[in-house]
Amino acid sequence: MNPESFSPEHFGWRFDAGVATVTLNRPERKNPLTFESYAELRDTFRALVYAPAVKAVVVIGAGGNFSSGGDVHEIIGPLTKMAMPELLQFTRMTGDLVKAMRTCPQPIIAAIDGICVGAGAIMAMASDMRIATPAAKTAFLFTRVGLAGCDMGACAILPRIIGQGRASDLLYTGRMMGAEEGERWGFHNRLVEPDALLDEALGLARSLASGPTFAHGITKTQLNTEWAVSVETAIEMEAQAQAICMATNDFRRAFEAFADKRSPEFAGD
Amino acid sequence: MNPESFSPEHFGWRFDAGVATVTLNRPERKNPLTFESYAELRDTFRALVYAPAVKAVVVIGAGGNFSSGGDVHEIIGPLTKMAMPELLQFTRMTGDLVKAMRTCPQPIIAAIDGICVGAGAIMAMASDMRIATPAAKTAFLFTRVGLAGCDMGACAILPRIIGQGRASDLLYTGRMMGAEEGERWGFHNRLVEPDALLDEALGLARSLASGPTFAHGITKTQLNTEWAVSVETAIEMEAQAQAICMATNDFRRAFEAFADKRSPEFAGD
Amino acid sequence: MNPESFSPEHFGWRFDAGVATVTLNRPERKNPLTFESYAELRDTFRALVYAPAVKAVVVIGAGGNFSSGGDVHEIIGPLTKMAMPELLQFTRMTGDLVKAMRTCPQPIIAAIDGICVGAGAIMAMASDMRIATPAAKTAFLFTRVGLAGCDMGACAILPRIIGQGRASDLLYTGRMMGAEEGERWGFHNRLVEPDALLDEALGLARSLASGPTFAHGITKTQLNTEWAVSVETAIEMEAQAQAICMATNDFRRAFEAFADKRSPEFAGD
Repeated sequence: MNPESFSPEHFGWRFDAGVATVTLNRPERKNPLTFESYAELRDTFRALVYAPAVKAVVVIGAGGNFSSGGDVHEIIGPLTKMAMPELLQFTRMTGDLVKAMRTCPQPIIAAIDGICVGAGAIMAMASDMRIATPAAKTAFLFTRVGLAGCDMGACAILPRIIGQGRASDLLYTGRMMGAEEGERWGFHNRLVEPDALLDEALGLARSLASGPTFAHGITKTQLNTEWAVSVETAIEMEAQAQAICMATNDFRRAFEAFADKRSPEFAGD
Repeated sequence: MNPESFSPEHFGWRFDAGVATVTLNRPERKNPLTFESYAELRDTFRALVYAPAVKAVVVIGAGGNFSSGGDVHEIIGPLTKMAMPELLQFTRMTGDLVKAMRTCPQPIIAAIDGICVGAGAIMAMASDMRIATPAAKTAFLFTRVGLAGCDMGACAILPRIIGQGRASDLLYTGRMMGAEEGERWGFHNRLVEPDALLDEALGLARSLASGPTFAHGITKTQLNTEWAVSVETAIEMEAQAQAICMATNDFRRAFEAFADKRSPEFAGD
Repeated sequence: MNPESFSPEHFGWRFDAGVATVTLNRPERKNPLTFESYAELRDTFRALVYAPAVKAVVVIGAGGNFSSGGDVHEIIGPLTKMAMPELLQFTRMTGDLVKAMRTCPQPIIAAIDGICVGAGAIMAMASDMRIATPAAKTAFLFTRVGLAGCDMGACAILPRIIGQGRASDLLYTGRMMGAEEGERWGFHNRLVEPDALLDEALGLARSLASGPTFAHGITKTQLNTEWAVSVETAIEMEAQAQAICMATNDFRRAFEAFADKRSPEFAGD
């Protein structure tokens, strides 16, 4: 993937100063996902593993909403007519989007305004950090369409962000989580006004992009892989992972800058 | 088990509109648990696996308190005289109550007023959601009787609800967690006035009971089983679990209702 | 180790009424850690496993700060010149400090004022409870020196204390977490004024030291070892662990005191 020339069909893409911005852009329907956009998003996050020029990613929706999730007519209708192998193919494909978002080395920042529901809420959840506006309304509304709350990793990931009791509430009832509630519970990292949303997200992304990006990728790997191991194992994993980072040039650059009383300039190697 | 005719000896039971209400009912002693009530509760939650007419469960205490936990004279006294095999038989039996509460497919809502301590606090913790009054006082007071905080799963479950630091505080000190604190920490999902407590809990339970209850059971299974697996494994587990739900009639009913612009009527199949 | 006569070289040590106080004491540089102090702290916490007279531990910094972490000149400089085997030896050694803090049976209370950053923040995180002042400033600033957030277990432990989203923010950005924020997020158990800090921490430690300390050690073991097991396994682990505690004299003492309507006197056996 060449981030400069990449031109996806089903979402917007901008690349500037190491930061890629993915814009869900069917604003007239609040940016739903379709079979095609799921697949293209999955392929894009997978390709980011091999796109070292991209240092951080912002995901945002066009027109004042994040995403209305899987389109009822384009996705839910066809699913009700599928046989089991096709159903599993679909749920694995959507799960692969979350896997791809968690596996690419770039930190992902979701910038959330307005409606953020269903698979849209999942994409927010699968991001590393979330900045929202006071108007953000997030719902894991799978139960409303007759499904379980366990979609694309939600029963594993959401409790680790907001706790098991609050996650149970959202996943059983499908109710809307308001923006203030989301901030209070640790889902949103902070709230900003709508007209500052993109700038705040880009500012954070650029700040990460100018940091030790190889090390950020290792941070992401460890945040993903240490969930289901013992404390002892996690500590050994981190001893190895951090030793790798101590062998990078960025570590040396930081020390030299400190000794020279100037700010370090990281290069991601 | 026939929920219509079930008549337990050691706690109250009501069944109405798919919702079973379990009432801990020795109010003169703040609803303590005894060897007999532990065993009957365990057997009841186990039987709920095979009671599809029951769609949701409310657990409440009589007389303005939830539960004072294991009765000091009827339980703690005898335990101090037991040999190890009997002790382990007892701790496994109480642990089996929590396993049964987590394993039955019905979401369990604890409705908590007043004293909620010891094994009572554990029953609240082992529920899926908790609604409390401002007078709720919750304590994991095992340390006060010379025991460890690790009772019936508390060292595993409580940190996942309120975080490791706050759980450590409660489990080491045995101190009382106030209602506001409990809400702020994510233990209580919300606070309501005492005279609204039962109605709020029943309202939530009925709302769940009128939803896609087969899918709710799958949500519960996944919330339980995805704790100790990797993110990748959790996502594959959910791909399979959600594909099962997409093969249900409730999923089709939801889509048809949406297409007809009416509310879905779920049947739990 | 004899806690009465123990006289460490690289930090302060007091022992009184079952409570050991570790003071990081190079206040002129905000109590940094060095190769020597890391090793001596690790050896001390390891020795506490065999020091039953010590019932609880307080860790505090001298001069209004907790710790500035690994000394830039004494640690970071040398690390930039090491080969991989030495780097791994260092990261394993620092990880061993966290393992030792989590493995000793005594509850550890961090008393945090002022600067608490880098390896200092890790020592706070690795404690069982944290009492802080409004001036406490905590940062996992590894990223600022070109490293990853995965230091000494942070990517595993911090998310379990404050949630995955907030931990991601702190670990990717290295930003300062203020004291109020830390309390709100569950990192600090409570905030007290600076002149009350040591007394509050000692008060809590003494209260634990006068409790059933054998059982407290079991609580700590279970809080550590139940992270990466299933709910079912955790419940069986606790059935066994609590049965052990029911065979202690402290359990009998508590019941006898209750029957006699007096406060129990625990002896830790």
